[in-house]
Order: sequence, then C-alpha cells, then structure tokens
Amino acid sequence: MTIEAAGEDLGKKIPSVERIARSARDAGRRLSQLTSSQKNEALLAIAKSLEANSRTIMAANAKDIQRARTSGLKEAMIDRLIVNEKTIAGMADGLREVADLDDPVGAVVEVYDRPNGLNVSRVRIPLGVIGIIYESRPNVTVDAAGLCFKAGNAVILRGGSEAIASNRALANLIAQVMDGLSLPAEAVQVIPTADRSAVNELLTLETYIDLIIPRGGEGLIRFVAENSRIPVLKHYKGVCHVFVDREADLDMAFDICLNAKVQRPGVCNAMETLLVHEKIAGTFLPEMGRRFQSAGVIIKGCDKTRTILPWADKAHEGDWPAEYLDLILAVKVVGSMDQAMAHIANYGSNHTEAIVSNDSSRAGRFVNTVDASVVIANASTRFNDGGQLGLGAEIGISTTKLHAYGPMGLNELTTTKFIVQGNGQVRTA
Amino acid sequence: MTIEAAGEDLGKKIPSVERIARSARDAGRRLSQLTSSQKNEALLAIAKSLEANSRTIMAANAKDIQRARTSGLKEAMIDRLIVNEKTIAGMADGLREVADLDDPVGAVVEVYDRPNGLNVSRVRIPLGVIGIIYESRPNVTVDAAGLCFKAGNAVILRGGSEAIASNRALANLIAQVMDGLSLPAEAVQVIPTADRSAVNELLTLETYIDLIIPRGGEGLIRFVAENSRIPVLKHYKGVCHVFVDREADLDMAFDICLNAKVQRPGVCNAMETLLVHEKIAGTFLPEMGRRFQSAGVIIKGCDKTRTILPWADKAHEGDWPAEYLDLILAVKVVGSMDQAMAHIANYGSNHTEAIVSNDSSRAGRFVNTVDASVVIANASTRFNDGGQLGLGAEIGISTTKLHAYGPMGLNELTTTKFIVQGNGQVRTA
Repeated sequence: MTIEAAGEDLGKKIPSVERIARSARDAGRRLSQLTSSQKNEALLAIAKSLEANSRTIMAANAKDIQRARTSGLKEAMIDRLIVNEKTIAGMADGLREVADLDDPVGAVVEVYDRPNGLNVSRVRIPLGVIGIIYESRPNVTVDAAGLCFKAGNAVILRGGSEAIASNRALANLIAQVMDGLSLPAEAVQVIPTADRSAVNELLTLETYIDLIIPRGGEGLIRFVAENSRIPVLKHYKGVCHVFVDREADLDMAFDICLNAKVQRPGVCNAMETLLVHEKIAGTFLPEMGRRFQSAGVIIKGCDKTRTILPWADKAHEGDWPAEYLDLILAVKVVGSMDQAMAHIANYGSNHTEAIVSNDSSRAGRFVNTVDASVVIANASTRFNDGGQLGLGAEIGISTTKLHAYGPMGLNELTTTKFIVQGNGQVRTA
Repeated sequence: MTIEAAGEDLGKKIPSVERIARSARDAGRRLSQLTSSQKNEALLAIAKSLEANSRTIMAANAKDIQRARTSGLKEAMIDRLIVNEKTIAGMADGLREVADLDDPVGAVVEVYDRPNGLNVSRVRIPLGVIGIIYESRPNVTVDAAGLCFKAGNAVILRGGSEAIASNRALANLIAQVMDGLSLPAEAVQVIPTADRSAVNELLTLETYIDLIIPRGGEGLIRFVAENSRIPVLKHYKGVCHVFVDREADLDMAFDICLNAKVQRPGVCNAMETLLVHEKIAGTFLPEMGRRFQSAGVIIKGCDKTRTILPWADKAHEGDWPAEYLDLILAVKVVGSMDQAMAHIANYGSNHTEAIVSNDSSRAGRFVNTVDASVVIANASTRFNDGGQLGLGAEIGISTTKLHAYGPMGLNELTTTKFIVQGNGQVRTA
C-alpha cells in the first residue's frame, strides 16, 4: 500500500486485499534480511514520529470518536477507543521496549554433525507475513506492528471499523518512517476499509500470509478459526482456577486468591473459579470470604460453600465454565485433588491453573497432570503474562497447542529452518 | 472405540466420529502420564503381535485387494496396497526403532528464575489427540500410530477407503495389545467407515482433536486445509531446486545433481529443476547432460540450455512449478545467483533448496536468503528427511511455518507448557 493509499484521500484508490497481501509478502522477504540495528533504528524512529505527530493522530481519532458517538456506541467502548497524549506516549514507550529486546532472528537453536559429515543447524527465521484481526483499541496497531517487525515479519492489520481513521493515521506515519529509512513501506499495512468481506478475503490468502492472530471477543476468534485457511494462533477465553489444597499455607492462599481475583478482574489470567479442599474449607473460607466481601467480590458458591458462607449466591451449572471478567467468583468445595483436577479438565480453558499447597509432591502431581499453558504452584494466576515470565512484550496468549502454548513473545513470531552444510554428500539409501 | 467396533462384525455398531474423538481425548489424557518404559513395552508388544498375527492381517488385506481388483483400481495403486510378510516385518521393525528413540515427553526445554523468585520451566508435553488423514498404504497406520503414541498422543486414523479392512485389522490388533497391558484401547483408533462425510465431521471436532496431519496428494491436502477448524500440518509438494553456482566444484555438482534427481525420483525431496549459472553452463551442462541421459532422465530446457544440449526438450512455463516425481528434469541457465534465488522464490515450494558452490560467502548468502524448510550447501536435496537429519523416524515434512518447518519427528508431536513454582508471589502491577 502506498502512503497515499493509507492516507485520508482514500476514496480514489483502495488497494485490494490481495494486493496488500502480495506486497506484504514481498516486504517480508526484505525484512527477513535486515540487521537488528536497522530494525531497532526504525522502531525508535517510529516512536519519535508518533510523539511528534500526536496532533495528527488525535485529529484522526477525533473522527472515530465522533462517528462512535453518533452511532450510539457505549461509553465504555468509546473509552477504549480514545487516543490522547498519554496513550501515544504509551505506544512510543512500548516500541522503545521492543527495540531493547533481543532479536530472535538468526539465533542458532541447535547445531550438530551427522556421521556422514553433514553439519546441521536450526536457525530462527521470521514467519513471513502475519495478519492481526482485532477490535477497538488503536494501541494494538502499534504494539502488534512493533513486535511483528522486530521479529522480521511484515504485518497486515485489520482493526475494528470504529477505529479505522485512527489506525490508518498510525499506519500512515509508520509507512512514512519506513520510507524515509529506505525500508519497505508495505511492512506495516492497515486494511483501509470497514467492509467485513475484506476479512473473509484475507483469511483465504494462504499463499501470502503465514499466520493469523485474532485478538478480541470469543465471537471474533471463533469466526476467524472457522473461516481461515491460514494457521491461526488464538485463545478463546481464560477460565482460570486456583485450587487451595488441604496442605495449603492459609496466609499464602489468602494473598494469592485475592490477587488472582481482584488485582485486575477484567483480564484473561484472573481467577474465575476457586476450588477448595474440603479438609481445609472450614478454616479457609470464612476469612477468605471476608476478604472477598471487603473487595466487593460477589461469590457464587456450591452447596458446601454456602453452608460455610451462607451469604454467598448459589452457583448454577453455567457458573463453572463462566469467564466473568468481573468481580464475581465461583467457589466449589472438592473432596480431593483428583476431583479438583477433574473439574479443571472439564471446565478449564487450558489457560492458567494454580495450586496452593505446601506438600511438594502433591503440588508436583498437580502441575504435571493439569493441562494448561501455564500451571502454577504457590503464586497468583496473574503471572501468565509474557513480561512476567521473562519473554518481554507479548502479542497474546495461546491456548491451542500448535506452535505456541502460553504467552507469545518475539520467539513465537519466528520459526526455524534447517541449514545443512556438506562437502559433496549424496544419499545411497 | 471398543475392540468389537474395530473388528469385523461392524455392521451392528459403528461409533460416531464424535464418540471416537471424545474417547481419544480421554485416552490421550491417560497416555500423557505414562512412563517411557510403559510406552516402549507397548510398542514392542505391538511389533510382536503384528508378526504373530500376520495371517489375520493378510486375510483382511486380501479383501481390500479383491475389492480393488473388482473395482478396477490401477495395478500401481494395488501394489501400494499389498501387505505381505515383508511389509509386516517392516512395520514391526519401525515400531522397534520408535521404541529406541528418546522420549520427548517431560524434557525440560528451558528453566530460569525470575527476579521475584519465581522458578519458570518449559516442559515438553504431548499435543493430546492427533488426526491423520491419508491414502492407500496400510503401513502408515502402524508408523503413524507408533510415533504419535511414543510422544504420548492418542491418534485417530482415517486411511483410504480401499485399505479399510487392512487398517481395521491393524487397529484391532493394536487395541488388543493395549487392552492386555491395561492401557487405553482408544489410544489408536481407525475410523471404521468409508463414508467421506466422516472426514468432514472429524475436521470440525476442535474440542477433542489438537492437530490434523494429512498425508497424500495435493487434492487431499487442500481439501483438509480448507475444511479444517483444527490446526493442520501439511506439505503440498516438493518443487526442489539445485543451483550450480559459477564457483561450483564440477565433479561434486555432477554427483549431487544426479543423486538429487535419480536416486529416488518419486519422492518429495528429489530435484525437479536444475538452475545453472551461465558462467559455468558451457563446461558443466554437456557432461551433466550425458549423465542424465544415461540415467534415462528427460530434460526440459530453457533456450540457453538447448543451445548447449540441442537434444533437450523445450521447457514451457508449466515446467517451472512442476513436481514431476519422475525421471524428468527442468533445466534453466541463470545470469546470476540473485536470478536463481528469484526463480526459487517464485516457483519453489519451501521444501528443499540446494546450492553447489566452493565460494563459502556465496553459499552462505544463498542458505540465509532462500526460504525453505531445509536449505543445503554442497549436498543432495535427498537429505531433507527426519532420519537423515538425525530426528529419527518422521511423520512428514512440513512446508508451512507454524509449529514445524521441515521434517517432523517426535519433538514436533509435542508442545511445551510453562510450569511456575512460587512461594506466595502475587502481582502488584
């Protein structure tokens, strides 16, 4: 996409989705050969340009806000849409952090010699072209572009139609910086139309696009998963449990459970269901309940929970698979660790599962058996996060097992190829 | 699936595809907890059982052969279908080799401490349930089952309808061995119906199945890729090139090119197009052409090739992307290495690409720039193979970049999860 096409005078010249994808593929090939310092220079230049052009960005954003107000979008949604000096500074800082991260491209993951003298190495390379399909927040445009670019990938961004002017303004600035550095302006492209059929078309372009990452609600993610011919990395939801074992340190359990539920209830790694071993329920739940009450948490309890906490609401079947993303918590008393693990296998979402237990063999059995991208003993579920686990910034958390399971950092935006060095070897069998 | 259902008296009781998938998911959970020696014991017992029951297998196979003859299947296809004492011994030996391979499950890929004291490890775990959709050859049933099982996965097999009796007999024997060892008989299941709609249903069961691997012709693979909601690992075709650089050692180039083309022309890592630097074409092509002629290779040459080898056929546009899988070779003279790489980027299939050059900086630029799962300097393309590259037996070669790029061995049938050990850590920001 040319800078003109990304700009405001779009009526005249909208590149087809296929043309965008093809040019992204070509740009990706050039990006794969860039040095780390070329990429870091560009990231820092984009950060500077965003801050220098904050008024342009905010002017475009104002159009989105106005359209959203006119069309009666909810105030909470409009809130997510707003770009101001502070959010722009946040985007710029994010890019500077990505520039600071180690470049995964070119890293030799493994190297060995074969008996016939062949030298084999596996080397990290970019995936190529990544498509990101997301909702509202315009900062995703910059965050995702920065991570994909640092890992040597071209990126095609398809944000929500309500943020289209903001996203186009951001992509336009990025393209200008790329152009100024003689880097391919097609490295970061926004699909410049609100037409939903563009998404359908994008999902069929497996010749040009290597990976699709949907970010947003379950409906969006299911739509993408069901319609994409391109591999998809996704997580549907985070129904995370903490199991307080009969051998738990109670003070530790109070702190972990409170943190897992209330520190940021609207995110995917917050606890949604608390499982309590029946041998400890009578001593643990009264104080835990008081702390939840003080924090404004509504409890949906099983029958046993409600004999201990009579004020709790009754949990229904629909509460066990629920992702509340709110100050609501399902609580179930279980007869054994095996019951807790069976409940998690049944209702969990392969996201984050935690146990609080001082018995290391029980904790070990729990973390080894439970199938989730991150399994935690004696710490809060909130640690399932790329930054917290030392991966640097993350582009999402995968709950499917192919390619990446858990938080996805720069490494997860690459693959490896085999490089084989010989001196004339041929195969005889 | 019960043993009865996998057996011969199938008319009465065909389990639905969903029931098969659900029971596979449950079996997979049990398999994930098995020790290496439990798995190896089962693999060796299955090998023994196949040999001991060779007459049962061959009797079932005879039904497939008879049906194939009656329906007029081509003799070459019937040949692929035949199971005899030798092919059974081959399957059994394959299982014994898989038993000898290191178990990937439980391997700690990475371990580190975070500044807050959290101990983080990434541990290999099985994927869960793998669906294999393939054509004719019944040995794939056993090979794929052995690899998936060793990596702790349950497997659902959907072979060609022409091999259904053979595949069911094989699965039945495997289930009996599993049962005898008190392991889940549902670990290896064959979809016991030739109904094509079963494949369509299988591809929608993303709740139970973690990965689909199609093996067969391009049509089958495209069908699976376009219809699956489950992640797919695939390779469409191998259009592999050898580029003979102007700095090539001619004798080495003769050997490599002949081997890459004729040692086994019907496989995906055979050379399909030879690219020759124009500076060396005049000295290289006459002798290379003679060798190809003696080996019965038909040459489809570009105009420059035909001025040197006037007897060669004329190459048409359709020859450059062709996967001949036969003693046919397209030959093109190029003006530079960049032209060779552009040709590969345009017509290659991301499978295997090789350069013959004594100039290590040119060879280095080639292997770093060319995008293929295996890139080779100074050896035959035939080395893109799990066994040859030291991965042990392979389940296929992936030419898509997600999860695995290149030959897929046991590691590629696993994923990693994060295990986090804390002592009460909570998040404050």
